[in-house]
Amino acid sequence: MLFVNPITYYKKCICEYNGTAYSGWQFQYGQSTVQGEIEAALKLLYGERISTVASGRTDAGVHALAQVFSFSTNIYRSNHAIAQALNSMLPRDIAILRAEDAEEGFNAQFCALHKTYKYMILNRQSRAALEYDRMWFRRDYIDVDRMNALLQVICGTHDFSAFCVAKSLKENCVRTVNFAEAHRDGEQITVRVNASGFLHNMVRIIVGTAVDFSIKKMTEADMKNMLDSRNRRRGGVTAPAQGLYLEEVFYD
Amino acid sequence: MLFVNPITYYKKCICEYNGTAYSGWQFQYGQSTVQGEIEAALKLLYGERISTVASGRTDAGVHALAQVFSFSTNIYRSNHAIAQALNSMLPRDIAILRAEDAEEGFNAQFCALHKTYKYMILNRQSRAALEYDRMWFRRDYIDVDRMNALLQVICGTHDFSAFCVAKSLKENCVRTVNFAEAHRDGEQITVRVNASGFLHNMVRIIVGTAVDFSIKKMTEADMKNMLDSRNRRRGGVTAPAQGLYLEEVFYD
Repeated sequence: MLFVNPITYYKKCICEYNGTAYSGWQFQYGQSTVQGEIEAALKLLYGERISTVASGRTDAGVHALAQVFSFSTNIYRSNHAIAQALNSMLPRDIAILRAEDAEEGFNAQFCALHKTYKYMILNRQSRAALEYDRMWFRRDYIDVDRMNALLQVICGTHDFSAFCVAKSLKENCVRTVNFAEAHRDGEQITVRVNASGFLHNMVRIIVGTAVDFSIKKMTEADMKNMLDSRNRRRGGVTAPAQGLYLEEVFYD
Repeated sequence: MLFVNPITYYKKCICEYNGTAYSGWQFQYGQSTVQGEIEAALKLLYGERISTVASGRTDAGVHALAQVFSFSTNIYRSNHAIAQALNSMLPRDIAILRAEDAEEGFNAQFCALHKTYKYMILNRQSRAALEYDRMWFRRDYIDVDRMNALLQVICGTHDFSAFCVAKSLKENCVRTVNFAEAHRDGEQITVRVNASGFLHNMVRIIVGTAVDFSIKKMTEADMKNMLDSRNRRRGGVTAPAQGLYLEEVFYD
């Protein structure tokens, strides 16, 4: 008779990664993915296959400062041992910041209330050498006050069809943006967007549009027209993946 | 009769690089070096071999935010064209920030008055995933006030034999450190050291020693003893290359 521990341990892990080398979070056969690396390490730690659920997928090249993933298992391991063991097995561009006990049934995706993404822009004359895989280089001067005025337009609850990859449009594109703010520190501009949910490429299209519209001295009315059009073609470029960081995921 | 332009143009260039992929600044046969890449690009731009002189060599894996190098040539190119052309030819981890006219006889090494190096430490429980090639990860908590007290000891003019790679000791190891300061911002510690000249690995030994001594709760007297001993073996570890950045070079 096989002994099965009747207790299920629900775990919540916070991890950091440099997305440059990965085809995103989500497992894909034959591709390097963050989930693939983490599940391979979990299998070694637990001796059995463990499925993880992240707060959300990140695309190829997108980084995370504090991605959250959950899993459950009948095998006991201390939180300290989980973090230590995974960090010793994971590649150097993925690190577990900590492992925690989670409430029964905890699911990092469905329990997430809202998330903050950070986007980094290098705004100067010469391209990035140190930050080439972590920032978006834009040579044209970006007026951050104008950018903030444009970002203000998309705050609140709207149909964000115009800010979503056209081919991945869902039936319901209504989302609530709690804040969207740009801040300049010398030649670096940081944009933070917090929302209850994000459409595919939503942050990158918001940032790309706000930057493009700022440089072209377009107004809040233009931003409003784009939003109301629900037409992706009316917007600016999709800012590249390497400037995007999943910064924080909020739970109850 | 060959026409030779009687005018010599002296140029000063400021460049940024991520040192991870390079065996340092200095040209070496069969190795990837920053100088090798820049001189290869200059040769394409000018159609002849151009020799560069940097403010100082940086070791393998060390980065630069504003390395300065000089060269001279009889061929005219505008400063804008130099920067643009080099940036289009250089690998993405090396960028020319700007090119300037320099006074006659300008030499980036001999004309440098003093330099500031920055050293970045990640001080937290889990290792760096995003910054693994740009910071030194130390798990033990570092008391920055103690570190500053220790760093204060080495400020001023001293014989820095104890803070130099033993095998590269020179006859005269007297240098003047103008300031050495540590600053904490969350889990990141930044150390800045400014001096009129540096011995081989001097900043890395200063930082490694200050960190080690801080963790071991050693005192200013211990730091003074090490300095006075002129014996490298009395000091702490050499902090690894990846946390070091040449930040600024000062000229008249």
